Amino acid sequence: MEKIYINGTFRDSVAASSFRASNPSTGEALERDFPVSEWKEIDEALDVASSCFKEMRSMSPEKIATFLDTFADLIQSDKDALVDLAHEETGLPKTPRLGDVELPRTVNQLKLAAAAARSGSWSMPTIDTKANIRSCYQSIGPVCVFGPNNFPFAFNSLAGGDFAAAIASGNPVIGKANSSHPATTKRFAELAHQAIEKTGMPKGLVQLLYRTSHVDGERMVGDPRLAAIGYTGSRNAGLQLKSVADKVGKPFYAELSSVNPIVYLPGAMKERGEKLMDEYVASGLMGAGQFCTNPGLLIMLKSQEADRFVAGVTDKYKSSPAGTLLSKSVESSLVKSISILCAAGAELLTGGSKVEGGRCAVANTALRVTGQKFLSDPHAFQTEAFGNAVLIVVCESMTELKQVLEQLEGNLTAAIYSATDGSDDGIYQPIADELAQKVGRLLNDKMPTGVAVSPAMNHGGPFPATGHPGFTAVGIPASMIRFAKLTCFDAVRPSRLPAVLQDSNPQKAWRSVDGVWTQS
Amino acid sequence: MEKIYINGTFRDSVAASSFRASNPSTGEALERDFPVSEWKEIDEALDVASSCFKEMRSMSPEKIATFLDTFADLIQSDKDALVDLAHEETGLPKTPRLGDVELPRTVNQLKLAAAAARSGSWSMPTIDTKANIRSCYQSIGPVCVFGPNNFPFAFNSLAGGDFAAAIASGNPVIGKANSSHPATTKRFAELAHQAIEKTGMPKGLVQLLYRTSHVDGERMVGDPRLAAIGYTGSRNAGLQLKSVADKVGKPFYAELSSVNPIVYLPGAMKERGEKLMDEYVASGLMGAGQFCTNPGLLIMLKSQEADRFVAGVTDKYKSSPAGTLLSKSVESSLVKSISILCAAGAELLTGGSKVEGGRCAVANTALRVTGQKFLSDPHAFQTEAFGNAVLIVVCESMTELKQVLEQLEGNLTAAIYSATDGSDDGIYQPIADELAQKVGRLLNDKMPTGVAVSPAMNHGGPFPATGHPGFTAVGIPASMIRFAKLTCFDAVRPSRLPAVLQDSNPQKAWRSVDGVWTQS
Repeated sequence: MEKIYINGTFRDSVAASSFRASNPSTGEALERDFPVSEWKEIDEALDVASSCFKEMRSMSPEKIATFLDTFADLIQSDKDALVDLAHEETGLPKTPRLGDVELPRTVNQLKLAAAAARSGSWSMPTIDTKANIRSCYQSIGPVCVFGPNNFPFAFNSLAGGDFAAAIASGNPVIGKANSSHPATTKRFAELAHQAIEKTGMPKGLVQLLYRTSHVDGERMVGDPRLAAIGYTGSRNAGLQLKSVADKVGKPFYAELSSVNPIVYLPGAMKERGEKLMDEYVASGLMGAGQFCTNPGLLIMLKSQEADRFVAGVTDKYKSSPAGTLLSKSVESSLVKSISILCAAGAELLTGGSKVEGGRCAVANTALRVTGQKFLSDPHAFQTEAFGNAVLIVVCESMTELKQVLEQLEGNLTAAIYSATDGSDDGIYQPIADELAQKVGRLLNDKMPTGVAVSPAMNHGGPFPATGHPGFTAVGIPASMIRFAKLTCFDAVRPSRLPAVLQDSNPQKAWRSVDGVWTQS
Repeated sequence: MEKIYINGTFRDSVAASSFRASNPSTGEALERDFPVSEWKEIDEALDVASSCFKEMRSMSPEKIATFLDTFADLIQSDKDALVDLAHEETGLPKTPRLGDVELPRTVNQLKLAAAAARSGSWSMPTIDTKANIRSCYQSIGPVCVFGPNNFPFAFNSLAGGDFAAAIASGNPVIGKANSSHPATTKRFAELAHQAIEKTGMPKGLVQLLYRTSHVDGERMVGDPRLAAIGYTGSRNAGLQLKSVADKVGKPFYAELSSVNPIVYLPGAMKERGEKLMDEYVASGLMGAGQFCTNPGLLIMLKSQEADRFVAGVTDKYKSSPAGTLLSKSVESSLVKSISILCAAGAELLTGGSKVEGGRCAVANTALRVTGQKFLSDPHAFQTEAFGNAVLIVVCESMTELKQVLEQLEGNLTAAIYSATDGSDDGIYQPIADELAQKVGRLLNDKMPTGVAVSPAMNHGGPFPATGHPGFTAVGIPASMIRFAKLTCFDAVRPSRLPAVLQDSNPQKAWRSVDGVWTQS
């Protein structure tokens, strides 16, 4: 059985049970056995993380940054092994996806987090010199990261965005590996171990568990030694864990589900319907649709252009090969979601069933529903079909289209396509206002699939997309304040202030001093 | 029966039941009857707030600011009537407290909120010019404010900090009056009505309900037409409402309870024990101790100075008149909390029972417990005794004192008193680190009772002080982002961007542009 990583050592688990991941390209179970940890070792991980955090409270940001840079370099050097492991466990192509896109993104995120820790600007230092009151965000305490299945590197619980943000803001991390890529995650733990040794970081900075029982998972989330949670995964499991954290007022940052509506205004359809169709298909089928920001709900007005668009999407979906899904569980969820949409009254245009054979795959699936039908059960028609499936809503009128928008739940993104000649401008604003209220990111004439790692990015949104509409999971430094608490120092003697709040501003952080942002 | 304020008109409620507030100075019920609203009118208020919010989405910040300024001026002009009403309902002194401190603070908060709305800097505009991604905080939707009993002006649900923050960030407010001062709150509704008429604001901007059943209160909090809640009040009721909001991922900003530990280091006690005692007594008995930041837990080492301190506090508590409490319910809660502390093993030094007569009052109460005893049931000994009561923990050793600190729950504030000659400096930092992790605001040599309205203030803290350690309820503009959502505009055409994100920056807001904070 594979070893867990606790208190700086890889050691045998006391687990009574184990699990194996599968290779989605063949459907066959992989050879390595991973333990389902018992409470005893979860308990120890929490103790170790607590002690580590005490050491980190007085640690220099430079030391934390050096760890992140070193870890990033080790990941870069280990690229081939990581790509091989992740390909085997996820079926994602080695190139360009894993090796040329996701691994560089992961390294970049860690380096950006290092730079943010060094600068201190992330902590929003605010100083009122007259009242001698100063505040900033500070590390919150041990963080547990539950990573998703769809980004084995960039959202990995031990190397991805939440991990980078939690460490950079000064917290130790307990990673709960995603069960579909435990070997990849273990490899990150080995590299983190090397980085910890090289940079003299405390042993509990990074720890790894592969799986726990539901009961123990909830117990861990509710434990007072754990300060915050980053969770990306299924809505049901996430809500269950969130309810435990909510009861004790503990921040639980959840990214749960999103159908990412795309609204095509009539002028745009007239002007460049064919082009829009190609753009959509490329985005919709990319990575077999397994992105949190995959455009899963297209909304348009009934017209000849709409008919052509739907027919075109159907043809392309039929003729394009179905991508490999991440796991059997993604495959079965997708088939189930499609059947829910059909049962609610959506018309199946193509696809809908598993591709025969061992490989995890579902035929590219397109569904259609009228606006009127959608309005008869808006909740059911917003069922997320995670993967290569899309629901197209065709509305009779602009009034009906707006009614559809009013029924939308919270989403990560929404996009509006409009004519370049201004012919849609008269109807744009009310639609944009409605959507902006419902989503974390609004796009114009652009698919939402790409999530740039930018300080201005918001990868978040109202429930049920996430658990709180004020936070982003992507973008350094903004994502860091999730794993921080606001602390105010009132009349605290100058030498006792955190460096970032001292008059000398040794890090040259951006600070708001008496209402003026300055680095001096 | 008094009229409710819905959809811009004062009208009769359909309520089947009603309630009266009492005059705490006499214990007698006041004459006016206030309705307990039925769901039908709550439902209408939510509808009206939704429509109002749609109008507000495209409203200029200048218009919102003008309303806030106008409202502030009307409050200033109505000072005498407001002070009379609040005095009658709360027993708080007309002067200096109500007329000279709290009313000016309330007016000032509204004016600061107006200025913040005008400047736009509160919304933290962040622009990535290369990627053409821009984000900022934007209004979240209708907000319900549950105001507390202890600040009839400065935290009033229709004039206080949460109200100002919610309106300034662009949201309509439904006020749920505190049941102990409904007439004061109604007066604010009347002034808000005048300000709405004068400035041409939509009718649903401000609405007022006095009370609802528990069931309807929960239904309102969970209703999708309500976007966020500001709640200051009792822990039990707050947690019940919070659980409803949590289930649907809706921000519920709760300020629940706090004992505000004060740690006296031995050097400070030796140096100026007498002075510290006087400073404590003034702060502890101010307003009959009815402040969220009242210092309710004093922690010190056993010593001759500590003995003198305890004896001095006991004497002063005995000889000082007991202040009037806000209501019978505060009185009975206080007596109950004291009995919980005694039952856990605290020694009653003075006070502990109701002052005879109709007036709401409890004798000034001091209790003592050893560190060892405290550690035997740290939860019970952190029972908040809201009012003029204090628990003094006397520890045998610095080790024991640190153990006591480790057992502290989340609080709004903590203060550390240390010697001016540096003799406590060797022990300061680990104690400060432990406390800073547990509280929203750490003070040095200063009582926490004053909560300055400063951009650097944090009136917040880890659970159970509040529901999330990243937000402040006092301090403009920081408190505004509670009632906002983060919205990102990705490749959105320039003319369609909110003003605060446009290149021209018409409001001259502070913005982070490519990592540099600038007003240009």
